[in-house]
Amino acid sequence: MTGKFPEMTLKAIGIVRNKFREPSSERLKLEEIISEIEIDPSLTEALDGLEDFSHIIVLYWMHRATSKRSSLKVHPMGRKDVPLQGLFAVRTPNRPNRIGKTTVKLLERQGNILRVQGLDALDGSPVLDIKPYLPGYDSADNARVPTWITS
Amino acid sequence: MTGKFPEMTLKAIGIVRNKFREPSSERLKLEEIISEIEIDPSLTEALDGLEDFSHIIVLYWMHRATSKRSSLKVHPMGRKDVPLQGLFAVRTPNRPNRIGKTTVKLLERQGNILRVQGLDALDGSPVLDIKPYLPGYDSADNARVPTWITS
Repeated sequence: MTGKFPEMTLKAIGIVRNKFREPSSERLKLEEIISEIEIDPSLTEALDGLEDFSHIIVLYWMHRATSKRSSLKVHPMGRKDVPLQGLFAVRTPNRPNRIGKTTVKLLERQGNILRVQGLDALDGSPVLDIKPYLPGYDSADNARVPTWITS
Repeated sequence: MTGKFPEMTLKAIGIVRNKFREPSSERLKLEEIISEIEIDPSLTEALDGLEDFSHIIVLYWMHRATSKRSSLKVHPMGRKDVPLQGLFAVRTPNRPNRIGKTTVKLLERQGNILRVQGLDALDGSPVLDIKPYLPGYDSADNARVPTWITS
C-alpha cells in the first residue's frame, strides 16, 4: 500500500444466494427477505460460535451497482422531492467503494451456510466479512437523522 | 471479477488521523478517542448533508493487523478464559479482509475533514467508506449475545 490514498485487494469470503437477481425500484420489506450466505468452505471453522449471536453484520460487495463513476451528489432513493445529498450522506450503492453493510437476523448456521433474514443484497453478491452484532458498540442511542429520512 | 470467490480492488477515500500510532493491549475508553478523518479532497462535495446526522458508520482498513494468514479460531480479545471462537464470531482485526466497522459520533465537518468521537482505528488507517447511521436499519432490537461478551 503506497500513496496517500492507497489501494488494497480483497477476496470474497462467501456469496449471497437469494431470489433477487436484478436491482428493483420496488421497496421490499426487509424482514421478508431470506437469503443464504455460502461461505468459502476453507473458512467454515471460522464461523464457530457465530450461532450464539442473534444478529450479525454482513459486509458485501454491491456488484450490480452501475460501473460508471459515481456522482458526488444524488437524490436519496431517487426521490426528487429531497434536495441533492452528498453520496456519503446516503446509502446509495453507487459509491467509490461499493461495500454494503447490513445488520441481519441469523436464523440458522449449517456448516458453511448461514441462513439470514433482512439482507438487502442481490443474488450472487460477494461477501467480504461477517461480524457479530454487538449492541452498544454497533448501535447509537438518541441518534439524530435529517427529516427526509422519515418523511 | 471472476471465480466463485472473486477479488476486487478498493481505493481509500480518506485517512484517519489521531494520536494512536501503535496497536495497544490497553482497553481504551472509546468515547475519549477523538480522531480526524481526512477525506480525499476530490470527494469533498460527497460529504454534503452528512452533518445532519449525529452518528456515522466508518469502514476502514485495519492496516496494522498482522500480515500472516489469520487463524480461523482465536481467544476473544486474547482472553484465555474464553473458549476459542471462530474469527467471524469475534471482532479481531486479523480477518481475511481487514475491514473495521465502527459507529461514531460526528462532532464536526469542516470541508473535507470530519472530526469524530469513538473511532477505534489507528493513526494512518485508510478509510474505505462513510455511511450515515440509520437507527432501526443499523440497530437490532433485543439482540442476543453470548455470555463471554458481557462477563
